Amino acid sequence: MFEDAELGHAIDKATYEARVPTLRSELLDAQFALKDQKAFPVLLLVGGVEGGGRGETVNALTSWLDPRHIEVNGMGEPSDEELERPRMWRFWRALPPKGKIGVFFGSWYTQPILDASLAKGKVRWARLDKRIDEIVRFERMLAEEGALVLKFWFHLSKSAQRKRIKELKKDPHTRWRVTGIDEDYFEKYDRFRDVSERTIRHTSTALAPWLVVEGVDRRYRELFVAEELLRALKARLAAPNVARPAPARPSDAPEIDAHRTLLSELDLTKKLSKVRYEKELEKWQGQMALLTRHKRFRERSVVVVFEGNDAAGKGGTIRRVTGAVDARVVRVVPIAAPTDEEKSHPYLWRFWRQLPRNGHITIFDRSWYGRVLVERVEGFCTPYDWERAYGEINDFEEEVSTHGVVMAKFWLAISKDEQLRRFKEREQVSFKTFKITEEDWRNRKKWDAYSDAVCDMVGRTSTAKAPWTMIEANDKYHARIKVLKTLCEHLEEALD
Amino acid sequence: MFEDAELGHAIDKATYEARVPTLRSELLDAQFALKDQKAFPVLLLVGGVEGGGRGETVNALTSWLDPRHIEVNGMGEPSDEELERPRMWRFWRALPPKGKIGVFFGSWYTQPILDASLAKGKVRWARLDKRIDEIVRFERMLAEEGALVLKFWFHLSKSAQRKRIKELKKDPHTRWRVTGIDEDYFEKYDRFRDVSERTIRHTSTALAPWLVVEGVDRRYRELFVAEELLRALKARLAAPNVARPAPARPSDAPEIDAHRTLLSELDLTKKLSKVRYEKELEKWQGQMALLTRHKRFRERSVVVVFEGNDAAGKGGTIRRVTGAVDARVVRVVPIAAPTDEEKSHPYLWRFWRQLPRNGHITIFDRSWYGRVLVERVEGFCTPYDWERAYGEINDFEEEVSTHGVVMAKFWLAISKDEQLRRFKEREQVSFKTFKITEEDWRNRKKWDAYSDAVCDMVGRTSTAKAPWTMIEANDKYHARIKVLKTLCEHLEEALD
Repeated sequence: MFEDAELGHAIDKATYEARVPTLRSELLDAQFALKDQKAFPVLLLVGGVEGGGRGETVNALTSWLDPRHIEVNGMGEPSDEELERPRMWRFWRALPPKGKIGVFFGSWYTQPILDASLAKGKVRWARLDKRIDEIVRFERMLAEEGALVLKFWFHLSKSAQRKRIKELKKDPHTRWRVTGIDEDYFEKYDRFRDVSERTIRHTSTALAPWLVVEGVDRRYRELFVAEELLRALKARLAAPNVARPAPARPSDAPEIDAHRTLLSELDLTKKLSKVRYEKELEKWQGQMALLTRHKRFRERSVVVVFEGNDAAGKGGTIRRVTGAVDARVVRVVPIAAPTDEEKSHPYLWRFWRQLPRNGHITIFDRSWYGRVLVERVEGFCTPYDWERAYGEINDFEEEVSTHGVVMAKFWLAISKDEQLRRFKEREQVSFKTFKITEEDWRNRKKWDAYSDAVCDMVGRTSTAKAPWTMIEANDKYHARIKVLKTLCEHLEEALD
Repeated sequence: MFEDAELGHAIDKATYEARVPTLRSELLDAQFALKDQKAFPVLLLVGGVEGGGRGETVNALTSWLDPRHIEVNGMGEPSDEELERPRMWRFWRALPPKGKIGVFFGSWYTQPILDASLAKGKVRWARLDKRIDEIVRFERMLAEEGALVLKFWFHLSKSAQRKRIKELKKDPHTRWRVTGIDEDYFEKYDRFRDVSERTIRHTSTALAPWLVVEGVDRRYRELFVAEELLRALKARLAAPNVARPAPARPSDAPEIDAHRTLLSELDLTKKLSKVRYEKELEKWQGQMALLTRHKRFRERSVVVVFEGNDAAGKGGTIRRVTGAVDARVVRVVPIAAPTDEEKSHPYLWRFWRQLPRNGHITIFDRSWYGRVLVERVEGFCTPYDWERAYGEINDFEEEVSTHGVVMAKFWLAISKDEQLRRFKEREQVSFKTFKITEEDWRNRKKWDAYSDAVCDMVGRTSTAKAPWTMIEANDKYHARIKVLKTLCEHLEEALD
């Protein structure tokens, strides 16, 4: 893997100086085309060994490019706000928007590689492989969302590194950069090499390749990175889209035994009397209140997703949940059209940015499932896009629940007749008319297509840690109590 | 002040229950009109004594309103990301966008009132008055930007509070809310009362009034707050704009001795030879590098503003600054058209959100001064708006510099002839053509109006802690060195 980067690659001064001026103006041209088209974001990851020249190269690159459209993220120690969110949150918040270049100095590779290299005892390869697998899926998602991802690994052989660090230590201007690097560090070199070799090998993909840079010669490093970036930028600007293979399973393939589905098996006649409802409401709201004031709740957070048929009673149910907890710890996020900042980031960005801190609850009124529901049915995205969304959503939710976030997802189901009744009622009652629009009537015509989408969605994204609960919602009382009860059960289990 | 809130106001159950259903539907109507018009944000501040029923009232209110369009901010302990920014940063980041209601439970009043009430020795009234003064100006700015600001103070007499807390302590469900409240607390009551009385009196303005709520009776509290909110919402929705008094000084008033200005007195012939420039560049860039790696720099941050004539060389100068420091600690923020999220917040929001953490530098390529430059000259805002901007900008910069942020502001000035030369050059050189647009030629026609605006701006916003430095920029070498040198001087002084 690293053999090619221990050959002593070097560029002489004349060649370097002849190339730099045109290279720079080509880079600037590409950068401005990128900025003007706002077609995609560029992620440039920088990793490698100490003394390999990462910092100097990035500094050279930023001095050649227009610094206004490049963001360099030195991902050091996470802040407390970051520590209270899933691991990847800090990277999501630093993702560059379309038209910008984001350099990640330290990235989602840093921690896995350090964990494996510095662990006491044997390297835990299986754990590393799991992280590698997550990274590969994450980067594929970025690329599918249009991002150009380039990764540079700055390499030095053990002897070259020893020599380089000696030099840096001699110079009072550079000494600060290598304090703390001692013999102990070099003892770890072999292990670090093994771990990073495996990581790089398994994470170098067509969509997000690693490029190993020999770090000995400054001019070589700089030209190498700049030329690769330039080439990638030009190619992507010239041909932003690549034809994708069609999904293996046609999206309109009929199901076998389609008359028995998750939805058809629901008993929508379930109901609760008003008296019983009020008693149960008090009980479960009280329970919610206690649970969210539990001492251990301060170290947990909760994400709740509400999806359902139009007029299924999401709003009223959400209000019964928020009514039970202190208003300061809960936030309801209604998902409507994305803002332009949201549109300039990958699909899941707008949801990542809303993830709660510890001790807080975020309720999504509609959610990331829009892609496999409305976007699928209305054809707002290609079958390829919503097919891949299942996997991306599962990855997202696993990331979130692994952090300890309690997740609950509810599908509020009503019958077609009940929906009609409610639509008509809404048209009649003055203060409810804002709730019924042309779109609702249009969606209703696609009832069956939506039902198929719901069954696929639940089947493919209900997991142990982020389960779907189907709510029979023809009777509002029953629906609200079932939601509250389910939430309490999830919470109790988590706080136990 | 509080006399009216110690009378034992109460609402009987029948009145309450008769009113609530219609009140609720009126509130929902108003909230949806607010959401649809997206005309302004609503800020609802909640303060007052312990046990005054603040939390319960907010919870009742949010259960009546649609929780999807209301955000309740429990402003507890600041996070480390917040502590590393100016005091008001955490409130700016929590400001609701247009169309939403933001409830602040704990606000910019909390700390000043607690500081004054709990201080050892005498109350430092002068210090309190300074904070009060800052708050009044901040809230006036919010209101001028269109926000509807309502502030509720929940009051209890000393005896009523004592009684209430006793009750809360008895009930195991509410005991957690009043732990820590003991006799010591009541000893502070009188002082807390004096401090809050003065604060409320001086911060209750037509644009952001305080409403004192007697906190004894639950039904009274809830109706009081809800009715006031409803009334204010309805009034503002019906008449969003109020005619404003014309500025006292006509904006086109000619200056006395207008031929001698800050700009005319600049010696634009200042220049540096290439040899000298390269030597000086190395010196000052080296100096910058050392200063930004100084140990004490980790506890400071830097904000640099670049403004200047079109083609004055801002980009090149910025690159010489960024080239001197580690790319990880510096970010350049180009100010172009605001995003829709930015447009839905007060003018200064987009700049607040970019303020750097400790150890970091943010360079603004154009800035909040756009309002008193391009917006003034092009008539994008009214004279009233840009006139008030001077004061708001001074407040903003004082807030920032008081936190210890090092501020530097540069005006890069070139002569009209030099600009013409550069425009023509840019049209000729292929890789510079992106830098010259129709707009540049249009702006050039308004040279004198821009010059007036610049002189006003510098005269009114150059302060000891956030000074303007005029840069003679006909010679790029001279300009770059002067900027670097000035920055180093500011930094040296700050780190000393």
